Amino acid sequence: MKKLYFLLAFLMLSNLCAYASRVDTIQVPSAVMNKTFKAAIVFPDSYAKSKKDFPVLYLLHGGFGHFDDWLLKTPDKMLVRNLADQYNTIIVMPEGEIFSYYIDSPVDPNSKFETYFIKEVIPFIDSKYRTVKDKKGRLITGLSMGGYGSLYLSTRHPDLFVAAGTMSGALDPNMTTWNLTPERFNGLSKFLEKILGPMTPDSYLPYSIVNMADQIRRNGMPLVMDIGVDDFLLEPNRELHRRLVYNHTAHDYTERPGGHTWDFWQSALPSQLLFFSKVLKVNNTTVE
Amino acid sequence: MKKLYFLLAFLMLSNLCAYASRVDTIQVPSAVMNKTFKAAIVFPDSYAKSKKDFPVLYLLHGGFGHFDDWLLKTPDKMLVRNLADQYNTIIVMPEGEIFSYYIDSPVDPNSKFETYFIKEVIPFIDSKYRTVKDKKGRLITGLSMGGYGSLYLSTRHPDLFVAAGTMSGALDPNMTTWNLTPERFNGLSKFLEKILGPMTPDSYLPYSIVNMADQIRRNGMPLVMDIGVDDFLLEPNRELHRRLVYNHTAHDYTERPGGHTWDFWQSALPSQLLFFSKVLKVNNTTVE
Amino acid sequence: MKKLYFLLAFLMLSNLCAYASRVDTIQVPSAVMNKTFKAAIVFPDSYAKSKKDFPVLYLLHGGFGHFDDWLLKTPDKMLVRNLADQYNTIIVMPEGEIFSYYIDSPVDPNSKFETYFIKEVIPFIDSKYRTVKDKKGRLITGLSMGGYGSLYLSTRHPDLFVAAGTMSGALDPNMTTWNLTPERFNGLSKFLEKILGPMTPDSYLPYSIVNMADQIRRNGMPLVMDIGVDDFLLEPNRELHRRLVYNHTAHDYTERPGGHTWDFWQSALPSQLLFFSKVLKVNNTTVE
Amino acid sequence: MKKLYFLLAFLMLSNLCAYASRVDTIQVPSAVMNKTFKAAIVFPDSYAKSKKDFPVLYLLHGGFGHFDDWLLKTPDKMLVRNLADQYNTIIVMPEGEIFSYYIDSPVDPNSKFETYFIKEVIPFIDSKYRTVKDKKGRLITGLSMGGYGSLYLSTRHPDLFVAAGTMSGALDPNMTTWNLTPERFNGLSKFLEKILGPMTPDSYLPYSIVNMADQIRRNGMPLVMDIGVDDFLLEPNRELHRRLVYNHTAHDYTERPGGHTWDFWQSALPSQLLFFSKVLKVNNTTVE
Repeated sequence: MKKLYFLLAFLMLSNLCAYASRVDTIQVPSAVMNKTFKAAIVFPDSYAKSKKDFPVLYLLHGGFGHFDDWLLKTPDKMLVRNLADQYNTIIVMPEGEIFSYYIDSPVDPNSKFETYFIKEVIPFIDSKYRTVKDKKGRLITGLSMGGYGSLYLSTRHPDLFVAAGTMSGALDPNMTTWNLTPERFNGLSKFLEKILGPMTPDSYLPYSIVNMADQIRRNGMPLVMDIGVDDFLLEPNRELHRRLVYNHTAHDYTERPGGHTWDFWQSALPSQLLFFSKVLKVNNTTVE
Repeated sequence: MKKLYFLLAFLMLSNLCAYASRVDTIQVPSAVMNKTFKAAIVFPDSYAKSKKDFPVLYLLHGGFGHFDDWLLKTPDKMLVRNLADQYNTIIVMPEGEIFSYYIDSPVDPNSKFETYFIKEVIPFIDSKYRTVKDKKGRLITGLSMGGYGSLYLSTRHPDLFVAAGTMSGALDPNMTTWNLTPERFNGLSKFLEKILGPMTPDSYLPYSIVNMADQIRRNGMPLVMDIGVDDFLLEPNRELHRRLVYNHTAHDYTERPGGHTWDFWQSALPSQLLFFSKVLKVNNTTVE
Repeated sequence: MKKLYFLLAFLMLSNLCAYASRVDTIQVPSAVMNKTFKAAIVFPDSYAKSKKDFPVLYLLHGGFGHFDDWLLKTPDKMLVRNLADQYNTIIVMPEGEIFSYYIDSPVDPNSKFETYFIKEVIPFIDSKYRTVKDKKGRLITGLSMGGYGSLYLSTRHPDLFVAAGTMSGALDPNMTTWNLTPERFNGLSKFLEKILGPMTPDSYLPYSIVNMADQIRRNGMPLVMDIGVDDFLLEPNRELHRRLVYNHTAHDYTERPGGHTWDFWQSALPSQLLFFSKVLKVNNTTVE
Repeated sequence: MKKLYFLLAFLMLSNLCAYASRVDTIQVPSAVMNKTFKAAIVFPDSYAKSKKDFPVLYLLHGGFGHFDDWLLKTPDKMLVRNLADQYNTIIVMPEGEIFSYYIDSPVDPNSKFETYFIKEVIPFIDSKYRTVKDKKGRLITGLSMGGYGSLYLSTRHPDLFVAAGTMSGALDPNMTTWNLTPERFNGLSKFLEKILGPMTPDSYLPYSIVNMADQIRRNGMPLVMDIGVDDFLLEPNRELHRRLVYNHTAHDYTERPGGHTWDFWQSALPSQLLFFSKVLKVNNTTVE
């Protein structure tokens, strides 16, 4: 945590100099989990100078991570702030804990991150800030477990988002589709089983985004996918892409160099923002 | 029809000479459709000489075809008979009409070919002939619409078959996955819509074998697929193969030269019999 | 042509108002073809205000097109100009005639567009304008035949370019890999045969980018590919992608909705500029 | 070795009883390597009873194996003998040493297995036995390194073979395309480097069957490929298949359950024989 405060101090200082975007760490209470979680929020430079309503991008972190990962771990520490400025978009980074998978766990009654995100985080942000309080201005993406969360939440709540993205998404919790050594498989599966229960060929099917290809088609929501060719999650991403091609669902799918790393996510995020900016433009929710 | 009688006459004659297998055209009544359909049945040479129970392969014809196609249309007219002899297997070719799709139609109450096949054809054959009256000796395959029928019936009735095959299977009735000119699309879709109702992106999903990949996995039934690389049905076959690889379902999948032709099916059928013979061996239902 | 002049007049006018980039139509002589061709050149707003050397993007047009296509045919007529401004990059659109394929034709001695581009266009631009006169500031991309040209020229002249792109690239002139009706095949093949000679399975191999995957690997030049899933050129693009994955060549590959249309290219070009901007940054040839 | 003699004794004994095929271990001298190697040869039952010339299948063993593997290691020890009987084909299993790759090594002057096989083994067999002394009766296949050898030899000597097969072929000696743990990679690469020299991205290209797809197309030789979906060599096999589909080369390609095991090869070999029998029939070199 200290590291973050130091960084934020640095960021605030740099604010005074060159960078105009503002970063806040906020508290977003959860009634359903009877707990308060932190979130980071980046306001573009233009926010303070304007009275307009701004689009919001929800940017989810990955497994074993926290709300502030996207600010602390990209090689270019200004990445998220610069993108907020460039695209005049508020970027909210909520907490997903180290392994919530952004779902309401069927086995752990204390882990209700789908409800938290949908019923508590979004209304909280919309009530406190000058946002476009409509799906037309609401975007979501994330990395790894957060890429899963982005597609899980947007596919199940298509009325709330105008577009969704995934970067290196852990799209299928059935880990037999991941390219892992047995050691790593065993290590990770323990975390998954805490949230989803025992992993059998059938038990995780309702939670696989790969199996939601027809629902994604029905929703018709613009979708952007990024995956590294060296990522251990390549196969589930290719599989979702193939199913979406097969069922004629419009989506952007990119394979890039790299693995499951912050270099990759730093490279992918600007592409996703570019994609989202086109969607906002069509929906007239861009702030010029 | 005349052509068939002539052929059968020739076949019977040749029986007296070199070929020992016997071909009968039989009548298999349908109570559910209040009609009687013909079927062809080939007995291997060994059937008459033996008192054993024989395995049965149900071999389904394609769209715009009839029960006797497999006897009349292969370049080598002895193909089915020779295979019956070689593998000591009874081969039954039931009627599926020109476009029944071997289902109980949700829109045409007069077309109930799933019920006919399952409740009437199989019991009829088992009651009249010396068959292995158990799934361990019962096989099914077919071409095009018959390849669909084979997988549709075996996936929904896994208690009845020990293995299933498909050749150039029309596995997904959603024709937007077929590689057709607009003219051919329109021509064929009329026939499909008579049986399945209006074709929408969702309406045919329950009938797509591609969408049954998880049920096929659960059944664990040995499966053999053959498809030509120039076939307009290549893509749905590849899609099912990929989904079965993705969900770790054992199956044999072959891409061969050729299109939607009898040359192809003549080439594919012996491979399927070879596959089936291994399954029968494991199940001790081979007649030596 | 009139249409262009009208547009350019409009563009100049708009220059005076909101848009700051400048568009010139220039004459680039060819000694090797004993002819002078037009080219369009877009200078970013920052060019006039600065004394720096600017990176140059060569942007190639497609078959049946001309040098001014990218200015006249995108739905958003300001697309190229805005991208020049946004990325502080000079964009040069040279002439490739309706079907030169940007090569030195092995059969038509009057068609020498590889030599023209490499020995005449690039030196001409570098001699007349304030460019980065080094591969580190030189980019190339194009659409369809121009996507072919981009990869053909950059793969054969890796000393001249720092990165290359292709959009809907006609990467393999062996048209049997294109998804065309027989009528369209015949129509197009006549044009190809004028430039490449009779099309046989072997004759076009030396001109196929798909067969240059190992040379592309050796060059190690950053590469970005965009292709629409409904494009008749999808398969050769997928094939090059697969070969580059197979031989471990870093590249960005995107499949997007759409076909062989200006809507698609308008959507793809900004992604390619974003890709190029990262390469320029690494090479310190970005103008801030 | 003792094990083999025991087995051969058993085989000879069983010859006297039920099995009619004959297995010989023969000595096939190599002038080029100044050494004599053993080979196994299986004669079908019909050979002794007939005066006809018989087709010959050359069946190659894999890495770390020897000439007698196919007789000793299949779960069904009668597999090769039964297939020889069933298809009236002589089956010759020559020696390829534990890691010769069936090539003339560019780095080890003592390893000249291409020359040995082409100039010494084939002429030796044709001179000693009643074979079809023509490509029309000569077949070749093998497993793993032997699948490589089969395609390497037949692609370079298309005048000598009428059809070729590969089972789990190590088709690309560039091991970066194999799915291996680092430990296994290092272990195997030492053996490869003894035969092929240092492994660089380029050095093994001339030895990759994947890169011979256009030569395979030109030869037009019937080709049958089998690969297990769990095999670490799956990707190079898929890649060759894709390239052969891409360049319109007729071939049979099968993905089956299983890995790099004798269970798999026992399952695959009968399919390859079935394929070969069709080729022999077309070439009128079948013994009825």
